[in-house]
Amino acid sequence: MQFHLNGFRTGDPSVKVAADRSALVRNAGGGTEVDVLIVGCGPAGLTLAAQLAAFSDIRTMIVDQKTGPLRLGQADGIACRTMEMFQAFGFAEKVEKEAYWVNETTFWKPDPDRPEHIARSGRIQDTEDGLSEFPHVILNQARIHDFFLETMRNAPSRLEPTYGRRFLDLTVDESAGDHPVIVRLSRLGDSQTDAVESVKARYVVGCDGARSAVRQSLGKPLKGDSANQAWGVMDVLAVSDFPDIRFKAAIHSANEGSVLIIPREGGYLVRLYIELDKLNENERVTSRNITAEQLIAAAQRILHPYTLDVKEIAWWSVYEIGQRLCDRFDDAVEGSGKPPRVFIAGDACHTHSPKAGQGMNVSMQDSFNLGWKLASVIHGLADERILATYSEERQAVAMELIDFDREFAKMFSARPKTKEGDEEGIDPAEFQRYFVKQGRFTAGTATCYAPSLLTGSTTHQDLAQGFGVGTRFHSAPVIRYADAKPVELGHTVDADGRFRLFAFEGTGEREAIRQLCDYLANDAASPVLRYTPQGADIDSVIDLRAVFQSGHRELERDRLHPLLLPQKGRYGLIDHEKVFCRDLKRGRDIFDLRRIDRKRGCLVVVRPDQYIAQVLPLDAFDALAAYFDGFLVARG
Amino acid sequence: MQFHLNGFRTGDPSVKVAADRSALVRNAGGGTEVDVLIVGCGPAGLTLAAQLAAFSDIRTMIVDQKTGPLRLGQADGIACRTMEMFQAFGFAEKVEKEAYWVNETTFWKPDPDRPEHIARSGRIQDTEDGLSEFPHVILNQARIHDFFLETMRNAPSRLEPTYGRRFLDLTVDESAGDHPVIVRLSRLGDSQTDAVESVKARYVVGCDGARSAVRQSLGKPLKGDSANQAWGVMDVLAVSDFPDIRFKAAIHSANEGSVLIIPREGGYLVRLYIELDKLNENERVTSRNITAEQLIAAAQRILHPYTLDVKEIAWWSVYEIGQRLCDRFDDAVEGSGKPPRVFIAGDACHTHSPKAGQGMNVSMQDSFNLGWKLASVIHGLADERILATYSEERQAVAMELIDFDREFAKMFSARPKTKEGDEEGIDPAEFQRYFVKQGRFTAGTATCYAPSLLTGSTTHQDLAQGFGVGTRFHSAPVIRYADAKPVELGHTVDADGRFRLFAFEGTGEREAIRQLCDYLANDAASPVLRYTPQGADIDSVIDLRAVFQSGHRELERDRLHPLLLPQKGRYGLIDHEKVFCRDLKRGRDIFDLRRIDRKRGCLVVVRPDQYIAQVLPLDAFDALAAYFDGFLVARG
Repeated sequence: MQFHLNGFRTGDPSVKVAADRSALVRNAGGGTEVDVLIVGCGPAGLTLAAQLAAFSDIRTMIVDQKTGPLRLGQADGIACRTMEMFQAFGFAEKVEKEAYWVNETTFWKPDPDRPEHIARSGRIQDTEDGLSEFPHVILNQARIHDFFLETMRNAPSRLEPTYGRRFLDLTVDESAGDHPVIVRLSRLGDSQTDAVESVKARYVVGCDGARSAVRQSLGKPLKGDSANQAWGVMDVLAVSDFPDIRFKAAIHSANEGSVLIIPREGGYLVRLYIELDKLNENERVTSRNITAEQLIAAAQRILHPYTLDVKEIAWWSVYEIGQRLCDRFDDAVEGSGKPPRVFIAGDACHTHSPKAGQGMNVSMQDSFNLGWKLASVIHGLADERILATYSEERQAVAMELIDFDREFAKMFSARPKTKEGDEEGIDPAEFQRYFVKQGRFTAGTATCYAPSLLTGSTTHQDLAQGFGVGTRFHSAPVIRYADAKPVELGHTVDADGRFRLFAFEGTGEREAIRQLCDYLANDAASPVLRYTPQGADIDSVIDLRAVFQSGHRELERDRLHPLLLPQKGRYGLIDHEKVFCRDLKRGRDIFDLRRIDRKRGCLVVVRPDQYIAQVLPLDAFDALAAYFDGFLVARG
Repeated sequence: MQFHLNGFRTGDPSVKVAADRSALVRNAGGGTEVDVLIVGCGPAGLTLAAQLAAFSDIRTMIVDQKTGPLRLGQADGIACRTMEMFQAFGFAEKVEKEAYWVNETTFWKPDPDRPEHIARSGRIQDTEDGLSEFPHVILNQARIHDFFLETMRNAPSRLEPTYGRRFLDLTVDESAGDHPVIVRLSRLGDSQTDAVESVKARYVVGCDGARSAVRQSLGKPLKGDSANQAWGVMDVLAVSDFPDIRFKAAIHSANEGSVLIIPREGGYLVRLYIELDKLNENERVTSRNITAEQLIAAAQRILHPYTLDVKEIAWWSVYEIGQRLCDRFDDAVEGSGKPPRVFIAGDACHTHSPKAGQGMNVSMQDSFNLGWKLASVIHGLADERILATYSEERQAVAMELIDFDREFAKMFSARPKTKEGDEEGIDPAEFQRYFVKQGRFTAGTATCYAPSLLTGSTTHQDLAQGFGVGTRFHSAPVIRYADAKPVELGHTVDADGRFRLFAFEGTGEREAIRQLCDYLANDAASPVLRYTPQGADIDSVIDLRAVFQSGHRELERDRLHPLLLPQKGRYGLIDHEKVFCRDLKRGRDIFDLRRIDRKRGCLVVVRPDQYIAQVLPLDAFDALAAYFDGFLVARG
């Protein structure tokens, strides 16, 4: 956490200096004019808003038809990958403290000797060792909203949602200048005609859920299965002698159906997903008049012989399983050459069952992918062609999710195999194997973006096999050179819209990092020189960090190129947080963990959303320049 | 972090349910009547206020003559032990995130070849491995105040300081009923006579600094050395090529004096302690007219050949070294048999040099020692005789501090030995050795309270040599049984005024923990039964936790006595956070780390301030009962 760069300030350093609001607000003909209008204050919308709020020169508006912040949400699963993103936004430790940690998952099936009783059939570690420095956790969605809202409020732009606005429609008129998207919003609680407001935006992002009005205004349907199974979900305070009531537990009874137990934060609350009867085709859940009492009774039957005495129901609902997906996540027309103006994210693009805890996570990653791209284009730093990569990258992820969920839901709902030769039933051991196999997927770390304008090839992947091109930059422990602090290298990637270059030293060519620095600092083709605006800090667009193989006590300061001790801010103070050494104390070092070629070293280019864009040799100056030249716009 | 016990609540769980204020405020004859009046909003006062704020039935008032919260403080060192206490108050992770971490300390002396240049002579790890699960950190005192104020504000009593009140005097009239201490306060900014307010208190605690008016009202002087050395201190934003500018560094130049560098939070700020000339006797610092420019120039001469270009001075001051101490920290009269009514804590009792970073830490530990004792007596739980242990325990600690500081300051100020046979000079290597030797002292973990009403003997110390009776309960990693979460056992000791019993299983007698539970749950002599108020949760006075030697997958739930799965709150929900297993994954387990007798196991009794009161055999029921019977008051 760095602060005081431009002078000592008292108070909470996470509250950034406020931008001059007068520079942000621009009115045009009575209507509001913004750079980005976000529709919907769910996880996708708030992630995007928090990202854009970091930029004091971008005018963002986020609206929601609700009248205030969410107090009680339905989503609760937070994957390791999402925690890594929260770290970049600065609140992972708050979630870690408050959340339930999913450490193990247990599996229960009918007791072979007494099939009317359930018995534990398996037990697995939930997340494989070393997959992430963060745990898989469970926390009420409303608290995640709170943390994003606090991040927005403390950001230079002091962004607050505008509640009580319902999206009506939008029109795009490319001839209408800089802000071609005109959105009509109705102000809720007021039925007069003049309660319709009009907002002009450069870009509009629909984060307005499964029934997205923004998506509908683009004429894009969600395609997929119609639901044919119903599940009940409830958060309860209960007394139970079920031994695994504080473990995530998948329970298949012989004849009473299935329950998934998700323990919740605070030590007492527990979520139950309860299988209901198969639905008749086209039978709507709402027409079935299921009561909370029926759900509890079903759970009690499934858990037999264990008891479940529900004392309070915090929330409950019934939902149908259905996997649906939108063909593309923006309004661009294939072959038109025109970049998109309107985007959709989260549930507006993809819906599926909640039991694998994926929805909120994938939604937030959607808009984390989009946020920095919008900011770069609005800043004039990147070509607007990069905007097309949003739909390309995220639609592919959503498709994987839908396929996974279809399989997962099917296996979960299947009757447990009770004897050999039972063709229809599923062996709980098989379900458990599937669960383990999909661990990286559900942790969110399996995402791999395909080669594109923004993501390179695997040509040099052998230089660092643990940093897969297209996957998220997997953190590892290092020692910060300047003060010997043990840190996670990945935690230097803040959600601030910058690209990172991580140069890993090779023992075969000790001068390679110095030569890279010389190139970046002095060569006319250097992307750092070409794309950093006049007067801005040298690391404000492309931020170089170096990791040396020496222990921090051995590395002499005169081996450091001045680019690794950059002078910044109004005083030209030295930033001492660019140089790291391997950690000799905590087991395998980063070179081993990420399988970096110790002799040759390598250069890893990381996108602002923490995904690896390139793995290159340290001296691949031309390839490095070519990467950035492919989509960045040179400054005047 | 446990919440939702008495029903699901939305929002931030660290904001506790507010107590009914009407039950707290009691007026008597126009004056305010409180249980505890705290004078002074420094670290000692706020620690005490935060502790008392946790109890909704204790009326606490904290006053300060300042008109609002501190924005910029002078203290900054936070010892490992203090971080452990912050953990109990719930904000250690905030400090960890924001603070500078002192990982290594370096030592510089005149370069033997060129004595006018300084050269690094040594480098040590700042805190020995395993001393605490927390780092030694540096953070502006004002931020620590902020965290305590937030804790108070979120506590059931929603305690806020009353600013703008100056302590005038106090009188104690034991015949005046329940609230015998009458304190007169003047309301600042108002010179009229009627601006004097009177507060009646059961107890008064003076946390009002070195010139404590409360101490003076008791007629107690600070005794000790008159100062004869002056030091300058400044917090600066500077550009320097000194290689260790981000390390804590003790620098002794040949002829220009000494500097201590303390890097500060945020990555750019640095504190310099700069030796000034020896003072003539009785020469006051303030008369010397030292300027900030002179301090900078002195630092520049000492650091030669390295540069120091100061860009901004955040704060600076000049102070004299002097070690002074008060004979006792309360108003009790030896032999009178009357318990104390008025206490002093922190700088009001002891002053010394700031360079070892002890002041704020010892002050907070003073009032952490006092807080639970006051609360227990006010609750009618403990005999008021325990109040005498405050001065006994903390005066001894302060005396050690004064002795340490005298030696440390002398060594720090001594001229570095330049050649063999130089009798007056001190070898920097000797200073370094002293520094290492005192590491546990400066980390705050060396404190050991003597046997007393509250602290037992070392009779059974061999059962757990790593849990020294009288020392702080040293945490170690364990696995929570109910959900397999890796946790620090010490973090179960919240600052909530409860005693903890930690029962460690011995393999020689597997039933011993069950028998202990049976005793505690059923025996008429059980301290749990005797001292827990009717209707209160079973763990509200004495909180039992058990640590088993089995891995968590091996321990069967039916081995757990119901007392280890207590049912609490309005619903009788099961508290699943009482049982732990050893951690098989993270190296040495808690039994090894704390040298617990694996065969016999043991019972460790921990005071509410985290200090170990007793180490006993698991079956020492009588000794256990006798300990609590010694100072607790049985409920009707």
